[in-house]
Amino acid sequence: MQKLLYLAVAYGLSATAPALAQQAAEKVDAATLAKIRDEGLNRSKVMETAFYLTDVCGPRLANSEGLKRANEWTQKQMALWGLSNAKIEPWGDFGRGWDIEKSYVAMTAPYYHAMIGAPKAWTPGTNGVLKKQVVLVKAATEADLDKYKGQLRDKIVLTEVANEPKTTFTADAKRYTDEELQKMTAPAEPRPAREGGDEAARTAFRARAALRTKMTEMFMQEGAAAVLSTRGGSHGTFFTSNGAPYAADAKPVLPEIEMAPEDQLRLIRLVEAGIPVELEMDTKTKFQTQDLKGYNVVAEIPGTDRKLKSEVVMLGAHLDSWHAATGATDNAAGCAVMMEAVRILKTLSVKPRRTIRVALWGEEEQGLHGSRNYVKNHFGDPATMKLLPEHEKLAAYFNLDNGSGKIRGIYAQGNEQVQPIFAEWLRPFADLGATTVTPRTTGGTDHLAFDAVGLPGFQFIQDGLDYNTRTHHTNMDTYERLQPDDLKQASVLVASFVYNAAMRDQKLPRKPLPAAPTASPTKS
Amino acid sequence: MQKLLYLAVAYGLSATAPALAQQAAEKVDAATLAKIRDEGLNRSKVMETAFYLTDVCGPRLANSEGLKRANEWTQKQMALWGLSNAKIEPWGDFGRGWDIEKSYVAMTAPYYHAMIGAPKAWTPGTNGVLKKQVVLVKAATEADLDKYKGQLRDKIVLTEVANEPKTTFTADAKRYTDEELQKMTAPAEPRPAREGGDEAARTAFRARAALRTKMTEMFMQEGAAAVLSTRGGSHGTFFTSNGAPYAADAKPVLPEIEMAPEDQLRLIRLVEAGIPVELEMDTKTKFQTQDLKGYNVVAEIPGTDRKLKSEVVMLGAHLDSWHAATGATDNAAGCAVMMEAVRILKTLSVKPRRTIRVALWGEEEQGLHGSRNYVKNHFGDPATMKLLPEHEKLAAYFNLDNGSGKIRGIYAQGNEQVQPIFAEWLRPFADLGATTVTPRTTGGTDHLAFDAVGLPGFQFIQDGLDYNTRTHHTNMDTYERLQPDDLKQASVLVASFVYNAAMRDQKLPRKPLPAAPTASPTKS
Repeated sequence: MQKLLYLAVAYGLSATAPALAQQAAEKVDAATLAKIRDEGLNRSKVMETAFYLTDVCGPRLANSEGLKRANEWTQKQMALWGLSNAKIEPWGDFGRGWDIEKSYVAMTAPYYHAMIGAPKAWTPGTNGVLKKQVVLVKAATEADLDKYKGQLRDKIVLTEVANEPKTTFTADAKRYTDEELQKMTAPAEPRPAREGGDEAARTAFRARAALRTKMTEMFMQEGAAAVLSTRGGSHGTFFTSNGAPYAADAKPVLPEIEMAPEDQLRLIRLVEAGIPVELEMDTKTKFQTQDLKGYNVVAEIPGTDRKLKSEVVMLGAHLDSWHAATGATDNAAGCAVMMEAVRILKTLSVKPRRTIRVALWGEEEQGLHGSRNYVKNHFGDPATMKLLPEHEKLAAYFNLDNGSGKIRGIYAQGNEQVQPIFAEWLRPFADLGATTVTPRTTGGTDHLAFDAVGLPGFQFIQDGLDYNTRTHHTNMDTYERLQPDDLKQASVLVASFVYNAAMRDQKLPRKPLPAAPTASPTKS
Repeated sequence: MQKLLYLAVAYGLSATAPALAQQAAEKVDAATLAKIRDEGLNRSKVMETAFYLTDVCGPRLANSEGLKRANEWTQKQMALWGLSNAKIEPWGDFGRGWDIEKSYVAMTAPYYHAMIGAPKAWTPGTNGVLKKQVVLVKAATEADLDKYKGQLRDKIVLTEVANEPKTTFTADAKRYTDEELQKMTAPAEPRPAREGGDEAARTAFRARAALRTKMTEMFMQEGAAAVLSTRGGSHGTFFTSNGAPYAADAKPVLPEIEMAPEDQLRLIRLVEAGIPVELEMDTKTKFQTQDLKGYNVVAEIPGTDRKLKSEVVMLGAHLDSWHAATGATDNAAGCAVMMEAVRILKTLSVKPRRTIRVALWGEEEQGLHGSRNYVKNHFGDPATMKLLPEHEKLAAYFNLDNGSGKIRGIYAQGNEQVQPIFAEWLRPFADLGATTVTPRTTGGTDHLAFDAVGLPGFQFIQDGLDYNTRTHHTNMDTYERLQPDDLKQASVLVASFVYNAAMRDQKLPRKPLPAAPTASPTKS
């Protein structure tokens, strides 16, 4: 009865739900889990780790100096904790390194106003002070650009603001309600059809992307001096992105600053009212082309069971971030939790049957490059479904990449057989708010790399907090946004899942292997 | 019954409340009020006015160039609308003018990071690039400062952060609920006693102020290069204040930047972890000592009634702001509404019996200087209660200075006799959300100057929106924060109140004259 009740809690079902009989056999080591909880909640180092990742290493853009510092620090730190085989492992070719060395932009007429912004990633700097008039370019189609021909030479181009800041009557941060979690125990509801259909939306998206590319080329051809743009945000928070390809042979672009919307909008309103606006810009960015490789950091707690130690339980999170903040919630939080989980297990001297391997991925923000290439190098290629010998040895992969919120459960990623196992594993942590196994899939991060070759890769459910409103990809994704109690809880949960997976008699059940994509017909 | 019901609505009372019989006689001119509503809601210029006050004039610190631009523009604009006697009227001596000409601060070690901040008002600039190590000074008492002696020469001093940013699970912006408005119809509840009593709180406040003064002096004496401090805020929003007296003969202070807390805290955490931090600063500020006077802008719609045109109904709001934003909600909003109210009345060619005079006050933020001195120059001196002849002629003063929220009612400011009058005046606007007359007093702005000499000065109740969380005195008090529909509503309400006061047979009833303060005994 107790077990039934617990299972019901774990599933978020009522106590009268049918028992999942096949799961009665799922054993957990309650004594070790209690020690994990004690170490993780009472002697946590997760915030200290997070401080080093964020404040000390700084922004960790793909192949930047900050990411290099973070690679070196994490390798060293995990070795200091006693982990084995701590190494910075190249995954293949990425592209150019890029760092900001100076960032200053101000309005100097009609009056002085220092503005908030940062160079877009992989754009060049002005290399000295530029003092120029601005021109506003408004274009919904390529044809609209024609009227600006001959108008842009030596000017700073302002582009339009798609998302204006709004006064908000809802809170920035929130947690999952019981009702929302309960809903997630059912398969995902079909997505409501988009107006005009998905294809129409994709066509519109491609048209916007093509227009942006055209604008970038035209500003360059017309001899504009620089570009100011914004993707949104409010109150001094702005969203960041890349402004040019990171490829070593990318075409040159203009210096471009991504702006706080309030500052961009002030400039736009003044220009539209016919008031001459002059700006002063002084930015410097540094390209690095000596080392174009990307890296992951890995470290291990070796397995101790003669038969099982060649098998591996992996856990990971991406170490890279965007460049205008220190990537605290995206994703120093996840890395700090994963490092803390292995620190807890190492500190407790658990003797895992399987080998535990933590991976801190590089270049996630540009397309999960670190994890995808790691999987390709170690497990198999999703393009061909040719598998490597290690593929058979991976017991599970656990990922964390949804900010600083505590763990409320886990996505089974469409793997029915793991659901009752995860429900049992969550059971001892119901009092910490982690109760939900959802059959649903989730995307957007590194577990997808494993899932793509049929390996059991999972992402946890986390409270969203202010991830989508304030922190994710913004200039304000800083240490302040981290919630110590949430990160401690998450560290305990992850450590326990990893431990369970390392001790279990069997590897975690897998979904059927995906079929290799059929080769696309060659173009005639 | 209808009147009874309306009165009940106006008072926020139930329909069974006793009628206020003496008010049956309060007449309003429904036809003109309908025209005011139509002009104000359907042909509003309030946002255009607000745009000029904010974006075009810029920050409007006391005696700054921005405030000078705003004085000149508002005088000219009101004259263009056909108002009479539009003038910039000096109120007396204020102090130095001060403007920012450059503002840049960045961390250059352990890595580059451009930071968000602005010079504190009336502080000098660095006048060129300063590149220095930082020292964190932590002091709870003067004695704590001793250990920093000899440590500060040529360093940038970091001071502590009292209010760290928190992740918020409540909305930035809110409106009054019906329940809250209902509560306000009763006299204010006694303030809960402070821990240790009010005197203890005052003593603690004075001690903190004395410590700050001591720190400022010590940093100067020790030869520090500059100071970074913060008063709070979050996500790129920071609160601003003055860093030195505006008096022409003020003692010199160091360059000081008020910082976004996230940036200040990052520096502090790095220093506390023993990591050397280097900053780069480049600020330039300009002092103006040619004209030390302060000014108000006034303009009139002359009265038309032979007997009553020498009497005046005033409306006003302060035109000055803090310096790191454009003072949109504090208080371009109030000024735009007051200007719009007189524009509406002028456009409708109403023939007010009394003269209507709008005043845009200067130097409110430094102590209601503009309004207090206007009152002293025109109506009487609260220090002596010696009254001038104009005192008798003022029918009413209406003020607006609580941000961009719509008007929900009015503070009767302890004047019992005006309550039923205001209730009648609000009656036609119940559908616009303005229903509440509170007997309570409110402070903090320019109606107090009138109240202090026994003149009927009133401030409206406004929805708070994000005034206290995001806009009031911050670097993000910008045009985006203005709510067009709210400001249109407020313009209609104010125009109607002013019109009613100008047409009424009697001036508004007054509270008893305050007694002149007794002279304080001379110190022995």
